Amino acid sequence: MVFTIQNALVLTDQGYKTLDVQVEADRITAIGVNLPIAGDTIDGQNKLLLPGFVNAHTHSPEFWQRGRIPPLPLELWLFELYSPKLLQSEQIYLSALGTAVETLLSGGTTIVDHLLLLPGRERETIDAAVRAYQQVGIRAFVAPLVHDQSLPTSLPSNGTAPDPQRQTKAVLDLLEEAILMHHCPDRGINLVISPTGLQLCSDVLVQKGVELSERYQLCRHTHLLETRAQQILAQEKYGCSAVEHLKRLEFLGPHTSLAHCVWLDDAEIDILAATGATVVHNPLSNLRLGSGIAPILKFRQAGVNVCFGCDGSASNDAQDVLEAIKIGTILHNITDSDYRHWITPHEAVQMASIGGAKGLGLEQQMGCIAIGQKADFVLYDLTSLSLLPQTDPVGLLVLGRPTQAVDSVWVNGQRIVADGKIQTVDVTMLKQELLRYSQPPQQYSTTSVVDVEQHYRSVMGLST
Amino acid sequence: MVFTIQNALVLTDQGYKTLDVQVEADRITAIGVNLPIAGDTIDGQNKLLLPGFVNAHTHSPEFWQRGRIPPLPLELWLFELYSPKLLQSEQIYLSALGTAVETLLSGGTTIVDHLLLLPGRERETIDAAVRAYQQVGIRAFVAPLVHDQSLPTSLPSNGTAPDPQRQTKAVLDLLEEAILMHHCPDRGINLVISPTGLQLCSDVLVQKGVELSERYQLCRHTHLLETRAQQILAQEKYGCSAVEHLKRLEFLGPHTSLAHCVWLDDAEIDILAATGATVVHNPLSNLRLGSGIAPILKFRQAGVNVCFGCDGSASNDAQDVLEAIKIGTILHNITDSDYRHWITPHEAVQMASIGGAKGLGLEQQMGCIAIGQKADFVLYDLTSLSLLPQTDPVGLLVLGRPTQAVDSVWVNGQRIVADGKIQTVDVTMLKQELLRYSQPPQQYSTTSVVDVEQHYRSVMGLST
Repeated sequence: MVFTIQNALVLTDQGYKTLDVQVEADRITAIGVNLPIAGDTIDGQNKLLLPGFVNAHTHSPEFWQRGRIPPLPLELWLFELYSPKLLQSEQIYLSALGTAVETLLSGGTTIVDHLLLLPGRERETIDAAVRAYQQVGIRAFVAPLVHDQSLPTSLPSNGTAPDPQRQTKAVLDLLEEAILMHHCPDRGINLVISPTGLQLCSDVLVQKGVELSERYQLCRHTHLLETRAQQILAQEKYGCSAVEHLKRLEFLGPHTSLAHCVWLDDAEIDILAATGATVVHNPLSNLRLGSGIAPILKFRQAGVNVCFGCDGSASNDAQDVLEAIKIGTILHNITDSDYRHWITPHEAVQMASIGGAKGLGLEQQMGCIAIGQKADFVLYDLTSLSLLPQTDPVGLLVLGRPTQAVDSVWVNGQRIVADGKIQTVDVTMLKQELLRYSQPPQQYSTTSVVDVEQHYRSVMGLST
Repeated sequence: MVFTIQNALVLTDQGYKTLDVQVEADRITAIGVNLPIAGDTIDGQNKLLLPGFVNAHTHSPEFWQRGRIPPLPLELWLFELYSPKLLQSEQIYLSALGTAVETLLSGGTTIVDHLLLLPGRERETIDAAVRAYQQVGIRAFVAPLVHDQSLPTSLPSNGTAPDPQRQTKAVLDLLEEAILMHHCPDRGINLVISPTGLQLCSDVLVQKGVELSERYQLCRHTHLLETRAQQILAQEKYGCSAVEHLKRLEFLGPHTSLAHCVWLDDAEIDILAATGATVVHNPLSNLRLGSGIAPILKFRQAGVNVCFGCDGSASNDAQDVLEAIKIGTILHNITDSDYRHWITPHEAVQMASIGGAKGLGLEQQMGCIAIGQKADFVLYDLTSLSLLPQTDPVGLLVLGRPTQAVDSVWVNGQRIVADGKIQTVDVTMLKQELLRYSQPPQQYSTTSVVDVEQHYRSVMGLST
């Protein structure tokens, strides 16, 4: 399959250029002015061609709970998250489809799904999500969310975890089974070793996870210091910082990405820089859950790679990558009065594309429009009202609120969005299924976790 | 004209109810289950009916510069804003249309346009904006942005303003002329007395403005303490706080709305509460310009009325009211660790609707779905992918990222959006005109205001 995009606006080191881009199979093979036509042609006039973004942290099953959970901090929010009745595995498939569709229509071509597993049906959950991503054609990093300790022990001063040995082995067996079954980078499906976070995992699980990732050459991913409570817990549990502990367990490295990273001190930032790990910034869930502002400008100054994630739909509650990029860019302007440190829209686009690729060990393969790179890219319609008038298209894409702006998306050389429409999913059918599984509209306004709430308020120093 | 919306989801004190809503002329005349049909019927099934929101602070001409200005604090950003070549008055008309269209398609039915005036063509500017709003049919509060001092004097420690007497009189004459020509609440066009802000206005201008507003029963509006530099300047200029000074000038009152209010201390908050003035929260521009986080939770606790604005498109850079509501809601969760103070989505909707109405003295007329209220409301399509699955529709509307979710909009009983399409503007033509006036795409990345920048860095204590 060969095709040529003609006369698209491309961002180069010398500014915007109108160029042709040629693709053979899954790679960009030529870029230039007036290339000889090969294969199908696609009109790029009044369109902007950018590398695809990475939605570098989400939890697709949370799609079922978006809009539902009232304003609560993470620790109490989690108890709400786990309280409703269990999903069916068909719903896992549907929520992965929905997550992928929203990601694609906001400029994402790659997704990291830190996948909540249905208890007792863990393999079924992974299979259902993989099936959805294969159907959609988005590049997927399926990261099963695994732990071997229980939720109450994730709160500070709430007792120690029981010995998890049996559960640890079951988790590791599950992961190896899923890897052997599904991991296939050439087909766009990648498994990831992804413990939930230190607060719910034994050291053995983390270490054995690292071994698995080395054996199968997989990326690693985890939650890290999303809340102040977790910072307190790390000191209680390890007598050292969480990052120091992860380093000792050899979890950190250039193919490791870490979601949130809100509560790191300078010494921890230096460790991230030294190990080459990537921070995934989830600005919207960090605000919604009151977690805080991750010190993104400091990370960048220390040379830590940063990219963006939407986080799960129960804590955001949308999978709009451009929204995460916008807020994750402008939010930091209030943390440093020297505007020379602020992130520009053009830097934000690089963070979202090449920064995301780097966190997955793919910076040689994707993240820019260049010969030899994977054809994972997005064509934006510059005649969309939301991108008019034309000024600095990247400036408006990042700082505006693009709607119906994505014209086409290619992943691995396959066009999976054309004329603003997903080609691989029947979206009408998807909407019907989402409606069919919906509950009657209801206002949720209180927390149902009274005893946990009391403990939380007490350890966090809130009036009781 | 009579019509009945049947079986729409309506939010009541007892939660969501499926109801019929009947309108005669410009008012809601009946609400109930299975109302006898009168006039045209509109199918409200799987749709949510909410009162229209107020986009309570914007500057429509900035539409021409959206995406263009690099990350800079307000004081330097302003010099960029005023640097490009002047607009034509046809462009003022087009940017007001664009601002109104984006407002309507994100749930807004009322707009407060703090209108930048073209130098030497002030009346022409006002006329062009009014023409646009009359055509669209949105409820408009046209608030000419007037001052009688020059931009450099708005920086702290930058000399005093020359005597502005002649200019003051010219400004006041202009305002009175515009009021007599255009102010007509029944037709949905309201003039507002709206000095730019203390930093650019003489006391005489503010006081005479108050007199004008009393004489013609107009609302008052101004920028207030958007940045730390303005807080410093107020002390330099008046030897007291800005709010104290505005109170002495009798500018504050129940029909006064104040954009930004980022840098207020507790005593100033108490004055706002006592005078009944309204705060317009512009969370997105406050982030983009690095101004800070307005103390919205404190305002609410003190009993100050708060609503939302998008601010002008050069500092946001979009007119999506739902985006302003979302970020203006979740942003404050990081300012108070006690989640019981956080704004719920249902409260946010009230702030955006009845809060907005109150700031314009219209809380008896609009802001809820109730008999006798103006028919200014919005029907959201709950089968939009972005509002699925159905959980708590208001929760998802506020915390999600609604796209193509607005089905219909009525203002003053007139349906100006139907099936997601604006009925009163040819949007294809509007886009062509916006494209026609566009410059070639260009990356803007540096500030052009070297000497001002040096002074700014010095007074703000930034390294030079």
